[in-house]
Amino acid sequence: MSESFNTIRWAGDVDGHLVLLDQTRLPAETVYLDCRTVEDVWQAIKRLRVRGAPAIGVAAAYGACLGVQSGREVDDVCDYLATSRPTAVNLFWALERMRRVGRVCEAHHEAGERWVSKTRPTLPQLLAVARAIHDEDRQQCAAMARHGADLLTGLPAGAGILTHCNTGALATGGDGTAAAVIFELARRGKRPHVWADETRPLLQGARLTMWEMQQRGIDATLICDSVAAQVMREGRVQATITGADRIAANGDTANKIGTFGVATLAKVFGIPFYVAAPTTTFDLSIATGVDVPIEQRAAEEITNGFGQQTAPAGASVYNPAFDVTPAELIAAILTDRGVVRPVNEERVRAVVA
Amino acid sequence: MSESFNTIRWAGDVDGHLVLLDQTRLPAETVYLDCRTVEDVWQAIKRLRVRGAPAIGVAAAYGACLGVQSGREVDDVCDYLATSRPTAVNLFWALERMRRVGRVCEAHHEAGERWVSKTRPTLPQLLAVARAIHDEDRQQCAAMARHGADLLTGLPAGAGILTHCNTGALATGGDGTAAAVIFELARRGKRPHVWADETRPLLQGARLTMWEMQQRGIDATLICDSVAAQVMREGRVQATITGADRIAANGDTANKIGTFGVATLAKVFGIPFYVAAPTTTFDLSIATGVDVPIEQRAAEEITNGFGQQTAPAGASVYNPAFDVTPAELIAAILTDRGVVRPVNEERVRAVVA
Repeated sequence: MSESFNTIRWAGDVDGHLVLLDQTRLPAETVYLDCRTVEDVWQAIKRLRVRGAPAIGVAAAYGACLGVQSGREVDDVCDYLATSRPTAVNLFWALERMRRVGRVCEAHHEAGERWVSKTRPTLPQLLAVARAIHDEDRQQCAAMARHGADLLTGLPAGAGILTHCNTGALATGGDGTAAAVIFELARRGKRPHVWADETRPLLQGARLTMWEMQQRGIDATLICDSVAAQVMREGRVQATITGADRIAANGDTANKIGTFGVATLAKVFGIPFYVAAPTTTFDLSIATGVDVPIEQRAAEEITNGFGQQTAPAGASVYNPAFDVTPAELIAAILTDRGVVRPVNEERVRAVVA
Repeated sequence: MSESFNTIRWAGDVDGHLVLLDQTRLPAETVYLDCRTVEDVWQAIKRLRVRGAPAIGVAAAYGACLGVQSGREVDDVCDYLATSRPTAVNLFWALERMRRVGRVCEAHHEAGERWVSKTRPTLPQLLAVARAIHDEDRQQCAAMARHGADLLTGLPAGAGILTHCNTGALATGGDGTAAAVIFELARRGKRPHVWADETRPLLQGARLTMWEMQQRGIDATLICDSVAAQVMREGRVQATITGADRIAANGDTANKIGTFGVATLAKVFGIPFYVAAPTTTFDLSIATGVDVPIEQRAAEEITNGFGQQTAPAGASVYNPAFDVTPAELIAAILTDRGVVRPVNEERVRAVVA
């Protein structure tokens, strides 16, 4: 099913620019944002005009091209883009791949690789790699959707699937992560019914997931985050599935704040909790979720989130953008290379490494 | 500690009117609403300009006086006011008390009482009873606070207490229910640190609880509802406490949507979950929480909650205003007549009946 929108698009050739669908304006308006400088891309990532771990990676790769277009060194622009958001590892993965363009490997050691920059990467080379990252992400989404739908094929027709945040075509270069699994189940005639957490504070579930489900004609009901426990208890949810921003070697998964609560409640109600993520979201350099840096965001997202003051001036706020769901709460991780199940380091390495 | 605001105030004598602090305008504005007709009071309750189970009961009692002021029968105005909101039992309790004004009991049967209206109640009689309901609510708040603080006296100084919705002076005729317990702990020098769930969709936690804590100088941190699991896991919460809208004979407790999730998570983390409610919130005519009617509210509260469209047009929404926490998740119910613990029908009847 082709989308009626383009989340991320490079317009033109090496002298072109990046066009992002401004996700902060959805669902009220469909507005495209022209990014002509690396600073534009940094701001777009920081302000969540583009968001979703895979989409951030793709946008950053194109952003590096814009930086080099203006005459800067690729390493410099990658260093700069890496400061936009700390949690999603796809950002760092994509930037690392851009840094390596044109480099030649000098030697492999036990301690790792040693790279020597023998040629300064050209803009055509860089753009080709950014496009490859984008295209691979599309293919990974499709593969994840197939593996996920195969695993969930036992769900009854019309099953309720609860999800948190947005994990569809707006979050990736392709069809999505968790949402792509739902789209694939729909394609296979399973008529899933989506329960979409609104996902405070930035309402990606209400604004983006509900919009994507409408566009695809998939039944979906919007709930406040605090209603998840109630719909689970009412027997309306047969599976829960979310995306991920970074997955540690043991399977601990950082994702949008609130995911840990969903997984904990799912456990109480005996409902499986799944994570769908491309292998680019794994960070095998960290042993467990404790080592994932958690972005803390501005209080105003909660106190003045709707263009209106909704808390007293000076209120103290705790606004982590992510939490970590421990591996033991995750029934399986659905990746482009297959299913990690049970979720432990051995299986993670077997599938991902 | 006296408040700087009046949640509910009758202005004047029998020819007076009801003045409500319009809670939908807080915290940005402190605006008082003059209610001169019973219709004004019905609207104020329906639109949550006054809210909180005990406060609704007090407001309705004064509302009945306004109806009789305009020449209508007390039974008629009570029937009308009873249609404003279905869940909080204090509303029906207060209205029943107003209906009985001037009546004389004819006979007591095993099946109940039979009342005969021998005298048409006078406005002074009705106003006196409404004022008594208001005054008793104040005293009940104070008693609840003492019993609750006695029970929680073992909490370490600086303990984190997570609460949901608003249960303070804005929710009652007095100092509050759950919040009054926190205020009393503060008075006793325990320096509680409040974790206030923002409480979607109407943000009573963000708008009202944070405002009341600020007014009292009590440390409080605002969190999105979905962050409760995370702060519990971080060890920042030593107790959870909420109010109630209706408590069944077995102790099952209906309260603001999201309470059941908080109680379920508290159980997972081994944190006690308490309910504070006056005996007027118990409904011994229903055996369990299954029989509590749950108000379903408009989709727009979620999709267009703060003057901005935050979900696509036509989105399906599930917006129950309340959920029911089963007795087995409740460590104790703190009432004006003492503590119900363990929470079961025998103990409920011993304390309340």
